[in-house]
Amino acid sequence: MGMFPKVIDERAMIKKALSVIRPCPFSVGPGDDSAIVEIGGSPVVVATDSVTIERHKPEGMTFEQFGWMSAAVNFSDIASMGGRPMALTLSLGIPDSLGDQEVCDIMSGADQCAEFCGAYIVGGDTKPGSGFVCGTAIGAMEGRNPMTRRGAVPGDMVAVTGPLGSPAAGYHAIMNGLSFPDAVDSLCIPVPRVREGIALASTGAVTSCIDLSDGLATAALTICECSRVGMDIILEFLPKGADVEDVSEETGVPEIDMMIGFGGEYELLFTFNKEGLNSLYSSGVSFSIIGTVTSGREARLVTDDGARRLDYGRY
Amino acid sequence: MGMFPKVIDERAMIKKALSVIRPCPFSVGPGDDSAIVEIGGSPVVVATDSVTIERHKPEGMTFEQFGWMSAAVNFSDIASMGGRPMALTLSLGIPDSLGDQEVCDIMSGADQCAEFCGAYIVGGDTKPGSGFVCGTAIGAMEGRNPMTRRGAVPGDMVAVTGPLGSPAAGYHAIMNGLSFPDAVDSLCIPVPRVREGIALASTGAVTSCIDLSDGLATAALTICECSRVGMDIILEFLPKGADVEDVSEETGVPEIDMMIGFGGEYELLFTFNKEGLNSLYSSGVSFSIIGTVTSGREARLVTDDGARRLDYGRY
Repeated sequence: MGMFPKVIDERAMIKKALSVIRPCPFSVGPGDDSAIVEIGGSPVVVATDSVTIERHKPEGMTFEQFGWMSAAVNFSDIASMGGRPMALTLSLGIPDSLGDQEVCDIMSGADQCAEFCGAYIVGGDTKPGSGFVCGTAIGAMEGRNPMTRRGAVPGDMVAVTGPLGSPAAGYHAIMNGLSFPDAVDSLCIPVPRVREGIALASTGAVTSCIDLSDGLATAALTICECSRVGMDIILEFLPKGADVEDVSEETGVPEIDMMIGFGGEYELLFTFNKEGLNSLYSSGVSFSIIGTVTSGREARLVTDDGARRLDYGRY
Repeated sequence: MGMFPKVIDERAMIKKALSVIRPCPFSVGPGDDSAIVEIGGSPVVVATDSVTIERHKPEGMTFEQFGWMSAAVNFSDIASMGGRPMALTLSLGIPDSLGDQEVCDIMSGADQCAEFCGAYIVGGDTKPGSGFVCGTAIGAMEGRNPMTRRGAVPGDMVAVTGPLGSPAAGYHAIMNGLSFPDAVDSLCIPVPRVREGIALASTGAVTSCIDLSDGLATAALTICECSRVGMDIILEFLPKGADVEDVSEETGVPEIDMMIGFGGEYELLFTFNKEGLNSLYSSGVSFSIIGTVTSGREARLVTDDGARRLDYGRY
């Protein structure tokens, strides 16, 4: 995840790095939110992600919240597969400027997020470093089929589990010295959609799923690339998060930039077979349908003025 | 692991950080080489550790070897529990000074170590950072009971799986511009004792086990602390690694410092019940008996001149 969208060469570097290793024999490997490893006959979901103080801790975020976030990004990856988080390991790289109290705050925040998600911190280490937390979460599938990025087919519907743009609004509020506590909370205390992921996977109707940690545009493009499909997202269907409108007015940052081009958002984007719509309604998960999967290869944003192609990167 | 022994306040910081999180309900949690998490009825072994370019990549170590090491430190933690490594995730923090080629070399080195240990890289990410690799390994117990740090009892024998001091000799050779390729290889391409760990756990005779990644003195002290026992290690029983004698002569670094006070060593230290000695001999694992577990609380090095107390830190 990135608070800001990943830049192109970072994506390229990951691809290049993966190109030199042996292909993974497991059903889901590198390139998805999580991997699945069979252990003792049971599929184990594994996800890893790191956050850095420089990049993911804006002014106004406490170390406790930073710790929460370091756990949340990993549980979110487990959630997007439909896994139940069980355990988390944390590796801290601590700069000289951080004292014992800050380290304890980070751990405590991570542990609170783990508790919220039903998991435990089972290990980790601390080393001198530039201010990073690397987390790895593992989870259980409990008989559910994992939701991957690869299963979307033309004709599927596209949906998100909640409103968009509040974390971005929170970020711009902080940067401009504005008081929008709800938006700031959504940025600083992101909620991994664990319950929703488990419920969605249980329906059997979901064909692909990904979290929005790099923003909606990147998530949509990733599903298109992995599933070899296109996607039309209807602008007016996008659910708008708290404070997005007000922060946009006060800062001049366009609403759409906050809603589709900013990372640090932890709703799930998923596609599903229309025939499964009723099972989704009865799953208890709130969601908004925002578009359709097409047979093209582009992800497009459809507005009254026509359609424009989405791209990786900032909007 | 540290190439150099952990300094006291780093150990204290880990303890403090662990004190603020909820106790882990699993049979083996934070504070051991790995944790055990029950998933779908199967115990899953999880270990995490990070290496940094600044601290763990001496001059003369290639990026491929650094990648190998970043994987090895994690597989070694799985091995010390008697687990079979299955998968590895890697999170890279990449400084501007590193190009695509170096990143690929790190990944390739890690993948070669994974192949050597029978595991696969299943995920990871790359971010701008100060030059670190955080790895997390998961493994299977396959019915074996995990070897922990906690089971040593007075009267047990103490043993190591192989000779000591070569990695330190390699380090000092590099620092002094001396040519000792075997010692340098043992430093740069550490071999996780996976086969040995599995075989040792299968005997049922081993009462505690730990790897030597922080050096023999720290490993012995850790087992004493976790098992609430003492340990007498007999200096003249310690198996001396390749080039230790020669490098000591040429550099003036005492042999004993290399053999017990230097990290980056990946043999296993274990204790066992004397009655199980025959099962150990028939396990096919080479080992050297180096001492006994005592009812004291100190780890001591016994020499012709008497016994001296071991301490955490550098020798």
